[in-house]
Amino acid sequence: MERIETAEALRERMGHWRRAGERIALVPTMGNLHAGHLTLVDCARERADRVVASVFVNPTQFGPGEDFAVYPRTPEADCAALAERGVDLAFLPTVAVMYPGGVPGAVRVEVGGPLTADLCGASRPGHFGGVATVVTKLFNLVQPDVAVFGQKDYQQLAVIRALVHELAMPIDIVGVPTRREADGLALSSRNQYLDPEQRARAPLIHAALSDSAAALRAGARDHAAIEADATARLAAAGFGVEYVRFVRPDDLQTPQGDESRLVLLVAARLGSTRLIDNIEVKISE
Amino acid sequence: MERIETAEALRERMGHWRRAGERIALVPTMGNLHAGHLTLVDCARERADRVVASVFVNPTQFGPGEDFAVYPRTPEADCAALAERGVDLAFLPTVAVMYPGGVPGAVRVEVGGPLTADLCGASRPGHFGGVATVVTKLFNLVQPDVAVFGQKDYQQLAVIRALVHELAMPIDIVGVPTRREADGLALSSRNQYLDPEQRARAPLIHAALSDSAAALRAGARDHAAIEADATARLAAAGFGVEYVRFVRPDDLQTPQGDESRLVLLVAARLGSTRLIDNIEVKISE
Repeated sequence: MERIETAEALRERMGHWRRAGERIALVPTMGNLHAGHLTLVDCARERADRVVASVFVNPTQFGPGEDFAVYPRTPEADCAALAERGVDLAFLPTVAVMYPGGVPGAVRVEVGGPLTADLCGASRPGHFGGVATVVTKLFNLVQPDVAVFGQKDYQQLAVIRALVHELAMPIDIVGVPTRREADGLALSSRNQYLDPEQRARAPLIHAALSDSAAALRAGARDHAAIEADATARLAAAGFGVEYVRFVRPDDLQTPQGDESRLVLLVAARLGSTRLIDNIEVKISE
Repeated sequence: MERIETAEALRERMGHWRRAGERIALVPTMGNLHAGHLTLVDCARERADRVVASVFVNPTQFGPGEDFAVYPRTPEADCAALAERGVDLAFLPTVAVMYPGGVPGAVRVEVGGPLTADLCGASRPGHFGGVATVVTKLFNLVQPDVAVFGQKDYQQLAVIRALVHELAMPIDIVGVPTRREADGLALSSRNQYLDPEQRARAPLIHAALSDSAAALRAGARDHAAIEADATARLAAAGFGVEYVRFVRPDDLQTPQGDESRLVLLVAARLGSTRLIDNIEVKISE
């Protein structure tokens, strides 16, 4: 596996592969890789001749008071894991490479409108703009045919699909189902912020989502009541619940009642650790 | 010359040329082509195997009360001129092709900071964001190796260079000197808004710029005084002067006194017609 840190070296390698007619997949990550990331790599592998993984903790998607400074950075272990998984190239740019005009830089890709107005967008102003900006740069540097993202970050995935659609980027976006611990907790680098007692409680998020989904599948149609039940259950267990919300999978807007699929999204804090998760629900008529 | 109106047809043609190893140049225009645009085409021709010209009056770069509705649209004449000049492909998208999420759409490329805070950016809020957004889309659709823009829109050219640099787009940006009428008036589609009497006065803009540049070259160093002279001269002739300003060519910021090159930028109205022009000045020591 090649390990590249500059835009110039990356472009040269990409140009070489592209001229050879090879199909390129990109897996953008913030590093500190876990089994969920490696599932993205496997998905990329199936869809391309060459797999590029980027490892970059993007400063502009963290807000003031968020965990940018302490976000776990483990580049050596990340590269070892990527190499073992068959990644062809790991791209580990510095902040100066990704933000040649400084941070945040003058040029910013903003995703406004209803897709980002609510849910994580409401509590993390600027977050999705930071994501859209860095993803645009990574896409322009790598020029992949396909890019792979995890469905755990459900709103992020929707934002990236909108970005690619509206800016006419010639890239297939693939979302990969969330990997979980045996007890149901969605894999996340932020899980390691949890102390043992918090870690023991954390699977309640997935349990509450699963039970809510089961209620919907069983015929319950009062979304607000199901959301309130899940919220109360999490709050009773000490979670600071930010939202528990049924939305439409495509545009993340309030269901109108005629949907055959919904997704239930949750964001909740355990102590200072913010966790998100979601579950898709197919509604039988 | 092919004439294409959809993103799908454009992508297919571009993919064909790219796989054949052909170098592609893009000339983005708003149509209503004059000799200045055709000079851009010539420049593109020299730098690529294939020349694509786009004709699209971009709604998001016009502000409220600006001339979007009446901006001259002459697609048949444009295509005839492009074909005669040896353009390989004319891309004439509809608004729905360029803005699949509607106008303005949720995704917007913003260029902030000092480059857009002043000059045309001050009087046309949102203008450069509209330019950056549509140019990003055109770049993603065509994926040119080189793109050619006129130097008459000097601040726009600087914005596009920043856009390409900061978003890591693999595209060479080429600026082409302004074409002028025999009396010095910079060619512009908006010149046709002028009535005969205004048209007769319009060359004073270039005359004032030229005389100001000559003063600088002759050793005058009081920029403010030269700017004030040019402003007064234009105002006396009935122009509504928006700005006359010496700036550094690269970042369009206030000169610090050690520059070997400056550019003098002007925006002024004749009646309701807003005209811009500029002149670069090399300063001998």
